[in-house]
Amino acid sequence: MTTDGECCRVPFKKIEGGVTAPKGFRAGAISCGIKNPKIERLDLALIVSDSPTVTDGLFTTNQVKAAPVKLSAQHLKNSDIRAIIANSGNANACTGVRGIQDAKAMARGAAEALGVKMRQVLVGSTGIIGMNMPIERITPRIADLAEKISDSGSDEASRAIMTSDTKPKTYAIEVPCKGGSFRVGGIAKGAGMICPNMATMLCFITTDAKIGKAEMNKAVRHATDMSFNRITIDGDTSTNDTVIVMANGQADMPAIKKGSEEAELFRCALHKVMLELAKMMVGDGERVTKFVEIRVRNARTQADARKAAEAVAKSLLVKCSWHGSDPNWGRVIHAVGYSGARIREELIDIYFGGLIACKGGLVSKTPVAELEKIVKQPKFAVTIDLNLGSANYDVYTTDLSEEYVDFNAAEYSAAVHTKRQKGLA
Amino acid sequence: MTTDGECCRVPFKKIEGGVTAPKGFRAGAISCGIKNPKIERLDLALIVSDSPTVTDGLFTTNQVKAAPVKLSAQHLKNSDIRAIIANSGNANACTGVRGIQDAKAMARGAAEALGVKMRQVLVGSTGIIGMNMPIERITPRIADLAEKISDSGSDEASRAIMTSDTKPKTYAIEVPCKGGSFRVGGIAKGAGMICPNMATMLCFITTDAKIGKAEMNKAVRHATDMSFNRITIDGDTSTNDTVIVMANGQADMPAIKKGSEEAELFRCALHKVMLELAKMMVGDGERVTKFVEIRVRNARTQADARKAAEAVAKSLLVKCSWHGSDPNWGRVIHAVGYSGARIREELIDIYFGGLIACKGGLVSKTPVAELEKIVKQPKFAVTIDLNLGSANYDVYTTDLSEEYVDFNAAEYSAAVHTKRQKGLA
Repeated sequence: MTTDGECCRVPFKKIEGGVTAPKGFRAGAISCGIKNPKIERLDLALIVSDSPTVTDGLFTTNQVKAAPVKLSAQHLKNSDIRAIIANSGNANACTGVRGIQDAKAMARGAAEALGVKMRQVLVGSTGIIGMNMPIERITPRIADLAEKISDSGSDEASRAIMTSDTKPKTYAIEVPCKGGSFRVGGIAKGAGMICPNMATMLCFITTDAKIGKAEMNKAVRHATDMSFNRITIDGDTSTNDTVIVMANGQADMPAIKKGSEEAELFRCALHKVMLELAKMMVGDGERVTKFVEIRVRNARTQADARKAAEAVAKSLLVKCSWHGSDPNWGRVIHAVGYSGARIREELIDIYFGGLIACKGGLVSKTPVAELEKIVKQPKFAVTIDLNLGSANYDVYTTDLSEEYVDFNAAEYSAAVHTKRQKGLA
Repeated sequence: MTTDGECCRVPFKKIEGGVTAPKGFRAGAISCGIKNPKIERLDLALIVSDSPTVTDGLFTTNQVKAAPVKLSAQHLKNSDIRAIIANSGNANACTGVRGIQDAKAMARGAAEALGVKMRQVLVGSTGIIGMNMPIERITPRIADLAEKISDSGSDEASRAIMTSDTKPKTYAIEVPCKGGSFRVGGIAKGAGMICPNMATMLCFITTDAKIGKAEMNKAVRHATDMSFNRITIDGDTSTNDTVIVMANGQADMPAIKKGSEEAELFRCALHKVMLELAKMMVGDGERVTKFVEIRVRNARTQADARKAAEAVAKSLLVKCSWHGSDPNWGRVIHAVGYSGARIREELIDIYFGGLIACKGGLVSKTPVAELEKIVKQPKFAVTIDLNLGSANYDVYTTDLSEEYVDFNAAEYSAAVHTKRQKGLA
């Protein structure tokens, strides 16, 4: 594994099929009219393993946790999770006792339809905060949904969890290993926004690898830290953020032993799938015009490298300058200066793409027209070399567009008015 | 003093005159063409005390400090500062040894023209980062500037330090005290932007109060903490942020004794002037459409109250919702949830103006149309009652507008191209 977050040693093959690419998983989705009963749109998804699983998950660190997050964290304490039921259109957050009842009703509905126990079902929700779930439109439909799931239903499931996403996010790989191979597939949703840290992130991953609980936990933490945590800046997670990984061991391979080479291979495979999904989240959306990789190099410590990278990635002024294709390294060094990372101004080099813009804290000789060419591209890297130590950190981010502001200006009022017009409020 | 940051006990009278309102101060400004030699625009200001002063200042906590900040911090170690020379159009930041030489040249020029020592002059700069000062257009003009200063020159000085500000910021008061009265006047610049924390802030304050060094230091720290630090969120200070307060003791009043009632009166007066200037900074600008006061109430500790207030004030999604006049309390509670402040979701009440939007973490019964009326106003308060303790904290902030993004999209390129067109690059 290289220091900058990419796994280079996984000899994977990209495959189709998302969460149903691994053996023994089925998925599907239906339309319940959760956001608006008059609009036909997939909004309820189900992912099921046909056999017992080892499952792990990570949830938002936000102190305000949505009801499905609370319920799923509790269910995860059990072994053998068999299904995930997830909806878009309503986050079921800030909904109190009623919210917990609604999340339980979803889990119970799925359990009954599948013939498993309620505690074997996890729940995910995304959408508006502070409104009760229209549960009366959901529970009566879960049996239909359970009928519908198939080994080609991943695409529909990935569409059903979208909110402001402009396209579904799905990725799957097959990884050859000693004595066989295994598959890892995932679907995710972020939002077509500048700051994925502010939008709800859901990610559901399945694998047929024969992996035990201890190695699974290690792999989920590692892969999340190297992927989603590089876009969910500063712990600003939403009330609903959820990452779940289910392994059913159906692959034709020997069981993965603790601390083995195969255990590391699994970790890297999970990292690869999560990183691709994370990049799709950042890159998604009509409202984002630039995908930018911030690379901090040679910081004193990893914590310093991270502070500097996140300060740059979060700076409104820096993001605005990218939107305008402006190679404004002054704003970058300004953000590095207040990041809290240990720096020596006179040692800092800043590059746009491969071109140096700032050398030793001062303007470089690179013509601005050359730097502009880099920043005009829809995808480029900004490298900040602190020249102080050997720790590196990468963050993926975007520009800040006028459309982002416009898009985010009236969600709540619009939702309430829609409800009222439909006689639902 | 009330807990929410307002001084209520200063029996002040608002007066005209800015930094020249207090006795014994003169000011003025000229146009040197710092940003663009073809454009006639005030860009170099001088503020002078006719007699010895007690002066204190606070500078940016950004590790990348502009040359004038480094020089002024050094000069402030001396007593008897006599003048401040300040320019707009160029920040003289990230300019290395050459930058220090240029800042010294400005101080030396002012000292020679005024017949004082170079170490008695402070320097302030604001503008673009990473370009050398066009010092050859500045130093030859300082003698003219020194000729021009007068006791009615504050207005010109306040205009000369503007960058993206749409209007000059000036405020002065006269405060009656035991045995006489004193005056405090100030000028400041922020920017017509959403986040004053990202823009350079300069504030120069004069007073004729008879105040000693110890009480002055205490007052400057207190007043800054209660004003500019409530808008400069999260320590994200620019490379050039500067607050300077000069006292020349010319008022007709007895000397202020340590720990006396008059010392507190002075502290409150300074707080009042700084708070008014800070509010002007936040409210300034065509690009800001809403002025919002975030009030956190009944947090466990002051630190918790501050964390919650700043998280809400900094949230892009919250700012966007205000711009769209959307009373989206879900985004507010979301930001409070990730702020790091200790909370109990089920105890949180959120108000827009005087109307409750969220009660005990759940949607209130207030009709959304009523809440919308509040958020449609150009100025309103959002109160977050954590109902956990008794600590309060207020922050002043704004919405996020499409125009902000547009305005900040191409500063550096534009500046470089301007220089090139004028044959200066």
